[in-house]
Amino acid sequence: MLSALDLARRIESGDTVPAAVLDLCAKAIDAREGEIQAFASLDLAGARRQAEAAGLANRPLRGLPVGVKDIFDTVDFPTECGTPIYAGNRPRSDAALVALIRRAGGIVLGKTVTTELAFLNPSKTHNPHDPSRSPGGSSAGSAAAVAAGMLPIAVGTQTGGSVIRPAAYCGVTGFKPSYRLLPTPGLKHFSVYLDTAGLFAAGVADVAFAAAAITGRDLRVDRRATIAPPRIAIARTNVWDRASADMQRALDAAAKAAAAAGAHVNEPAWPAFLTDAFNAQAVIQDYEAFRTLAFEYDHHRERLSPILRDTLDKAAAVTADDYDAARRTTKRARQALADHMGEIDVLLTPSAPSAAPGPDTTGPAIFNRVWTLMGTPCVNVPGLKDASGLPLGVQIVGRFGRDHEALLAAQFLEKAIKAAA
Amino acid sequence: MLSALDLARRIESGDTVPAAVLDLCAKAIDAREGEIQAFASLDLAGARRQAEAAGLANRPLRGLPVGVKDIFDTVDFPTECGTPIYAGNRPRSDAALVALIRRAGGIVLGKTVTTELAFLNPSKTHNPHDPSRSPGGSSAGSAAAVAAGMLPIAVGTQTGGSVIRPAAYCGVTGFKPSYRLLPTPGLKHFSVYLDTAGLFAAGVADVAFAAAAITGRDLRVDRRATIAPPRIAIARTNVWDRASADMQRALDAAAKAAAAAGAHVNEPAWPAFLTDAFNAQAVIQDYEAFRTLAFEYDHHRERLSPILRDTLDKAAAVTADDYDAARRTTKRARQALADHMGEIDVLLTPSAPSAAPGPDTTGPAIFNRVWTLMGTPCVNVPGLKDASGLPLGVQIVGRFGRDHEALLAAQFLEKAIKAAA
Repeated sequence: MLSALDLARRIESGDTVPAAVLDLCAKAIDAREGEIQAFASLDLAGARRQAEAAGLANRPLRGLPVGVKDIFDTVDFPTECGTPIYAGNRPRSDAALVALIRRAGGIVLGKTVTTELAFLNPSKTHNPHDPSRSPGGSSAGSAAAVAAGMLPIAVGTQTGGSVIRPAAYCGVTGFKPSYRLLPTPGLKHFSVYLDTAGLFAAGVADVAFAAAAITGRDLRVDRRATIAPPRIAIARTNVWDRASADMQRALDAAAKAAAAAGAHVNEPAWPAFLTDAFNAQAVIQDYEAFRTLAFEYDHHRERLSPILRDTLDKAAAVTADDYDAARRTTKRARQALADHMGEIDVLLTPSAPSAAPGPDTTGPAIFNRVWTLMGTPCVNVPGLKDASGLPLGVQIVGRFGRDHEALLAAQFLEKAIKAAA
Repeated sequence: MLSALDLARRIESGDTVPAAVLDLCAKAIDAREGEIQAFASLDLAGARRQAEAAGLANRPLRGLPVGVKDIFDTVDFPTECGTPIYAGNRPRSDAALVALIRRAGGIVLGKTVTTELAFLNPSKTHNPHDPSRSPGGSSAGSAAAVAAGMLPIAVGTQTGGSVIRPAAYCGVTGFKPSYRLLPTPGLKHFSVYLDTAGLFAAGVADVAFAAAAITGRDLRVDRRATIAPPRIAIARTNVWDRASADMQRALDAAAKAAAAAGAHVNEPAWPAFLTDAFNAQAVIQDYEAFRTLAFEYDHHRERLSPILRDTLDKAAAVTADDYDAARRTTKRARQALADHMGEIDVLLTPSAPSAAPGPDTTGPAIFNRVWTLMGTPCVNVPGLKDASGLPLGVQIVGRFGRDHEALLAAQFLEKAIKAAA
């Protein structure tokens, strides 16, 4: 994989130049893209022209190539949202996040494959660790492109588990920041209350570098510095019995590694209000999707996949009262979670129930949904493997608005897992 | 003006048909549009074809014509956002709210004029009560079209005061619901944290009818029923000394009329936390706009109006720390406002500092900004006039999520003002 932070430092010091980084990407794309199919569109020639711009090395993203999930508007690439409904769609502007990436000196190398309208129907993308496996979804191409070394940075979104889950399956770092830390205008929405933009990169320090460069916020973590050991609470959650034996062992291994590195690790009981929130997430997602996708459902129903069509058919029955009740449950749960984490820096929980499944599914978001609804920062920390050698991801969940703390704790855990290996 | 509720009832009872309502609009457009210029685009022929659809009279909006502010995506009209940057822009889908209007049996008759990117630069639209005056902004065309009887229902948005202020200047009812009661996907954003879709119609019952029909929520108010007198608190706010003498008298007249009709009216002190929130609104709007409009600012700066360009120039200096502090202030103020309104149903406050100003400005949003930030429902209640006969609007502000209560109180006040006249 390409380390965004290392590449940025080498550009900064004059060791390399943006055009040479593009060549690294091009080489990996040449070798892997035929099999992986992570890109919805790609423009190496255009990126090379942009890489010659003066002063790029002095800008926050240092001219690094970035892949953007194909549900964000772009002026120079089609934005097809993984559906024939938007074949050839050419927006007139860049989404806000895309414009900020360019403003920060990032080069958009291409659009990455999304599942249909960022929902559950599997995409054409393959998992770089085993092409017979799913890369997860919906940010399939972003996770796979980073995993295959074709890109140092990629953008995705999460409504249920669409950043953390593909990151786990592909063995990369995924960062779902606090709700709307990264701007969403110009994104094709599914459920506004949940849709959260996030980032993929090789390691925690890489994703933190990218987030800091794009937002101008103090989010960087230093791989070489000593990080104060965080207070970690293990969260097996309400769906622990659906985690594979390998994942259950991986979570324990991660907790043990963190404790061995000096973290204070405990395990409070799973609070009932989070199970309530878990259930509320589905109500909110369905109610909003039936309205957000009203155009597609009412005018292009026959072009939707069966899984999306069936979901929207059922979503029509969710009432405003159901939705309002789920919103109230959410509000209470957010407050209760803040109280619950009064003496805890971060939670440690699986990123997904197992390693990547076969190609017929993008995998369940059961270990992600509640955190998307809570709006808390989540980081998939890779480094563990199942019995067959496939990546297993564990997840750090921080407090709302404490993204830097969450990234620091994830960096701590990443290092602890490596040290324990 | 055309009463949406009366027209809907007449269609329901078979007294009239959607095509005949379109003829009423066409007649008013023919008579007034040349002078008023409320429409960015218009398709009477297309609307007439849609009006022949079977079953339209049985659907919630009964085939009524609707105008949509030209910052919402539409498949059958250009979406130009009041700027040459988007001249001829043709989105591939309808915004969610537009799709819901069509789903409810509304006919989009045209796009209404917005100021440039829904900011402050005056548009070409004139105030129907006095063409030498501003209709307000940014939802200029929506307010003016309803005021001139060219449309029974129009859609707008409010970030500072862009629904309530033009409604007040044009003498129509404006309804800014609770934050995101009406969906925003497919809307050209300015500041996601603030941007709120709203509605314009002749009277309170009309706007309530439209909101109920579009959302499927129980929001209707019955003009003929007796409404339980609300508990009303007068809010002169932190900017009372900037209200004209006529507006100050109008607020007192409205309060007196409400009390005479049986409302319990009191006047608690203006809480300091709301002045803090007033100031926070500008910080949030500026910080977000500089990012939301990154594409336009970075690539089309010379095509922006001086007022928007200067605002964004200055907005670049707002830091993430400023923004985060403003968000914390907001969170505290929302909680404090809920407590403050524990024994109050609604607040009564000016909708704007005065009647419509001259054409060089869209008027200040100083009586609106804090409520947009609080996310509370607001209704401009027309019926009062200044010394020269121009409309003066007063505003009912309800509790977050209590939109029906706010509409009922507004209906109560509308009736009380009429009775006192």
